[in-house]
Order: sequence, then C-alpha cells, then structure tokens
Amino acid sequence: MMRVNLVLNGFGNVGKAFFRLVEEKKDFCRKRYSLDLEWSALLRRESGVVFTPEKRKKLAAAISVPDYAAALAWGKKPVLEDILQKDHENVLVDCAVSDNRTGEPGYERIMSALKEGWHVVTADKGPLVFGWKRLRDEAYRNGRSLKMSGAAGAALPALDLATKSIAAARIISVEGILNGTTNYLLTRMMEGGLFSDVLAEAQEMGIAEPDPSNDIGGWDTAAKILLISNAVCGTDLNLDDVKVEGVTSIPESVITSCVLERKKLKLLGRMRYEGEEVKLEVVLALIDESHPLYGVDGVDKGITFVTDTMGKITLTGGKSDPKGAAAALLKDIVNIYLR
Amino acid sequence: MMRVNLVLNGFGNVGKAFFRLVEEKKDFCRKRYSLDLEWSALLRRESGVVFTPEKRKKLAAAISVPDYAAALAWGKKPVLEDILQKDHENVLVDCAVSDNRTGEPGYERIMSALKEGWHVVTADKGPLVFGWKRLRDEAYRNGRSLKMSGAAGAALPALDLATKSIAAARIISVEGILNGTTNYLLTRMMEGGLFSDVLAEAQEMGIAEPDPSNDIGGWDTAAKILLISNAVCGTDLNLDDVKVEGVTSIPESVITSCVLERKKLKLLGRMRYEGEEVKLEVVLALIDESHPLYGVDGVDKGITFVTDTMGKITLTGGKSDPKGAAAALLKDIVNIYLR
Repeated sequence: MMRVNLVLNGFGNVGKAFFRLVEEKKDFCRKRYSLDLEWSALLRRESGVVFTPEKRKKLAAAISVPDYAAALAWGKKPVLEDILQKDHENVLVDCAVSDNRTGEPGYERIMSALKEGWHVVTADKGPLVFGWKRLRDEAYRNGRSLKMSGAAGAALPALDLATKSIAAARIISVEGILNGTTNYLLTRMMEGGLFSDVLAEAQEMGIAEPDPSNDIGGWDTAAKILLISNAVCGTDLNLDDVKVEGVTSIPESVITSCVLERKKLKLLGRMRYEGEEVKLEVVLALIDESHPLYGVDGVDKGITFVTDTMGKITLTGGKSDPKGAAAALLKDIVNIYLR
Repeated sequence: MMRVNLVLNGFGNVGKAFFRLVEEKKDFCRKRYSLDLEWSALLRRESGVVFTPEKRKKLAAAISVPDYAAALAWGKKPVLEDILQKDHENVLVDCAVSDNRTGEPGYERIMSALKEGWHVVTADKGPLVFGWKRLRDEAYRNGRSLKMSGAAGAALPALDLATKSIAAARIISVEGILNGTTNYLLTRMMEGGLFSDVLAEAQEMGIAEPDPSNDIGGWDTAAKILLISNAVCGTDLNLDDVKVEGVTSIPESVITSCVLERKKLKLLGRMRYEGEEVKLEVVLALIDESHPLYGVDGVDKGITFVTDTMGKITLTGGKSDPKGAAAALLKDIVNIYLR
C-alpha cells in the first residue's frame, strides 16, 4: 500500500467535486491500485486548513449540504512547507483559476511545489498556458510528475491519447471540439435558436459562465489546443501564436444553409504542421457526415489525431461537468503510480 | 539513454511490419524517448537468428524486396537463455499466432520470458485468451510489463483507455466494433452487396483470411471483448463464457429495412454487469444515428465505455493493417519506459 498525501488548492465547483469524489473512491483506490489517498490540507485564497480526521469528517458532512461556509471558517492559511511530509508521496491538486497571460497566482505555486519535490496534478490552465515548458522541465529535473488532463479535455482523455496511446507515432494534425459551452450554443442554434436566446438559456443552466467571453470568444479552445500542442509536439508556443475565431457573429443565413445541407457548424481547435512549423488556430468550420466529429453535439467534446503509423484516431464524449473534471484529476493521480 | 534489447518472435505480416517500423523509428525513439532499441534476435518456428549488425542490415535490405527467404535462411534456432543480456532491458515482441483454446505455442514462451525477467509485448491473442490472469500475475511477481494492445484493438488504443485514461472510474458497460473484417462486410452489404460476393471481394483485397471463420463467426470479436474485460474488470473468464453470434446468416429483409430506416447493422462485442457478474456477448445489432459508433464503417473499429464518473467515452479509428498493429506494439514498448 502506498500512502499518498493530497493537498487540494481551490475549493470552487471542481475543487468541491474532487473532494467528494476522493471520499467516494478512497476504498476503490485502496483495493484496486493499493493507493492510500489521505488529505493533508485544503488551501484557499482567503484561508486554509490542515486536515485532521475530525476536520475531514466535518468537511465531508458540510459539502453534502448547500452551505459550505461553516466548514471553511477554520484556522489560518497553512504554510506549504509545514504540510510537506517527507516520508510520503505528496501531490498538489490544483483546482484554482489563474490568468492565462501572467500564469498567476498558479504558476509560482506549482513551480514551488515541484521544487519541493511534490507531484502536481492540475485543472488550472493559466500556469500551463503561460509556462508549460518551464514547469515540465522543473518536474523532469526533480523526477516528479506534472499532469494536466483536468486542464485540457478533462474527462475526454485527449492528452493520454496524445502522449501515451500514440507514442512513437508522428502526429500530423489534430482537430478538436474542445469547448462544451460553444458546442452547446452551436447545437441549439442549428435547432433554430437565436444566439442571444441560447446563450441566456445556457447561462441559466450553468453551462455558460455569467461572463461567457472566454468560451464564446474561442479563447478556452485556443488555450486547450495550445496545451495539447506544447505537450505532444514539444513546442513552446503561447496564446499569441494561435489565430482565434469565436462564435459571436454567425450570420443566420450560414445556419440555415448548413441545416439544409445536413452539415454542422463547429468551433474547432486545430494544430497542423506547415513544413517543420506548428500552426495553431481556432476556426468555425462546416463539417459533414463523413467527419469523425460530426456526431459530437451539445456539451460533448471530441478530438481527432491524424498520425503517420496509426492512421486517424478519434476520441469523443467524457462528462463535461465538475465531476468529470474531478475524475480526470483523480485518474492523473492514479497514473502517477500505475505501471 | 536506455538500451532496450528486442527479440522478435514471428515473422509474418505483423512481424515484418514491426521490423520495418523499428528500423524507421529508431532515431525518433532515441531523440524523443531516450530509448535505444536494438535487435537481439529473430525467432521463427522453423529457424531463428541472433542479430549482428550485418545480419540486421541484410534483413532490412531483404524485406524491402518481395523475397524474404534469403534473409531468413541463417543459422539454427537460438536458445532464449543465450539471448538474454542481463545488463540490459529485454523485451520479447511476440507476433506469432497461437491457438485460442490451448494458448500454445505462445503461452509457454511468454511464461518463460516473464520468468526470465523479460518484458513482453504481444499481438498474439491465444496465450492471453487462454491464461491472461496467470501471465499477468507472473509479470507482476517479477516486476515486468506484459502489454497486449496489439492483441486487443491494435492501433485503436482500447486497452490504454480502459486501464489508464479512465483509471479510478467504474466501468459500467463496454460496447465495441472490434473486428474490421466483419465491419467491412456489413458496410458493403448495406451498400447492396450479397454476403458471398462481398466476402470474396474482401478475401481478394486481403481484408478477409482465406479461412474467414474466426472473423465471420464472431470469434475474433469474442476474444477481444474477453481480453478487455479480463484486463479491466479483473475477471478470469474464458471463451466459453461469451455468447457469440456471427454475420453468416443475415436475412436480406433485415438489410433492406435497416437501410430504409437509416439504421446500421453492426457486430458488437459487449460487456456489462448483471449485479456483480460480468456478462460478455457478441451480437448483431441495429444502431441508429444517435449511437456513438454509427459513423464507424468499412474496416474501421470503435469502442464505447460507459463509466460512473466520466460518462460515456468513445474511441474510433486506428489503422486496421499490419502497420497499425506494429505501431501498437512499438507504442506499448515505449510505454514500458515512459513516465
């Protein structure tokens, strides 16, 4: 049995879902993978808590009811170094949200954790968009894992496929529906809805954020295709290298004609080689029935890899919600130890 | 740089494709994964050869022309123990074909290799159908890897997805189009061909074997869903536990009506839980547009996993030819060493 100490940073929707999931899956992970997952600490911007068995129980009880405030009102922000238990494996699970341009506040936190010899599993795109290569190099130097399924596809295991399942193949191009929110909007528009109406509907349902610009402007898709490209092609590109189109200004005539032709309008993140150079873009494209992502509707996601030796491989589905993201984080943790 | 000695057993279509692929990808594997792949020996039923640089060069030259015989007429069958180089990592790459009922001749060979401390990467279903659990336990005892992507999906990385990408999720059910030959036959029949005609056509094209019974009887699909189930559900089932249907006696009226209804007829390998018990079957099923495998036609394959925490995840595509199988073997080798 391997003891693994977890430090959870961030307690928004994904952080809470992750906490619940670990509580639910603890026994399964002990039996199936001989991994003993233990909570060390919960860090939040305003406060934090070092877990004791009583505190864990209290938190577990609290998050099964709508009011989390009581459970989080404990103690002072703990110091990372105090939490680190040298005798055990330590994993920082990062569910906070950082800025894509500066990478902060996550970049410094992840860099410190890697320097201290922790593994890091993260759903936070910002630090990775800002400095994936430097973080990965630091992880490598320390023989630690830095895993980011939660940030690039979540329950759609795009990165596992790209880095493991097609290892030794050369990736010729990648094309993905990587953002569930915009795919939902486009699907509803194909069914006859107006952009403003379906956006309001999606916000009502919690599918779109109150400020939806990161999704509908194509930036979330851009960040994901960038992360995938940097991870699998060894590039060190940044957001400025991605040509980005959003879904905000689609003429009604385009929708009508593509419905008539049985085509579908999709926001695609694309990576392809132009000679030795990697080109990244986010584009609105019309795809027909023969396209492997044609059936990917609603909040679903999908990605296609074209390779030299394995042909074309497509991955679709995977829950697009906090529980799916939490499951991706837990999967990454198990895979640090799984042979 | 890690030196990895390869012993290739079997030199049919897949073995030859694997030899070619390693020659082609050697530099890539050195640069990308710091793996130095070296040939130790080639074993065949009737003879064998321990590689020297000259012999490797001679073989590489020979298999680029249609006549392989000259290159294979060397020496006596080498003894496995003589090949084992204790200073290095040794991987047995098995491309032979064994019997599904007895597991031989592969079972004994793989068991010996694991006992000698080798890793094993195999495309040979027989030994795995016969005794996966015993082989896996032996690998585990010796801290070695036993990888079988080549036997269960090949370039469609079904096992990676099942064992790694959805780790910690509970698999509720699995459904797959796992045999390219039958899927090709069914696709052509939906286009109007008669079974006997499209079978002859497929044999002509090398898509179906001269004796096609293993494919069209559903047994290849049965073996694959069995391997996947045993690998991911921890079961120790055998072929007798699979209810198997083939594609040999489909009434023409079924084809006609499903074309009219825009449905498709597919041979599906299925695994599902009935209570705590795992049920396996191979069935002909009509699926409609909403089914995630609806777009999987011709020689393509696909598989859908339904999980508790990650929802429904589908994988489609992957080259259905010896090169795709060879790429799956090489991918498995890289993944023994990739962290």
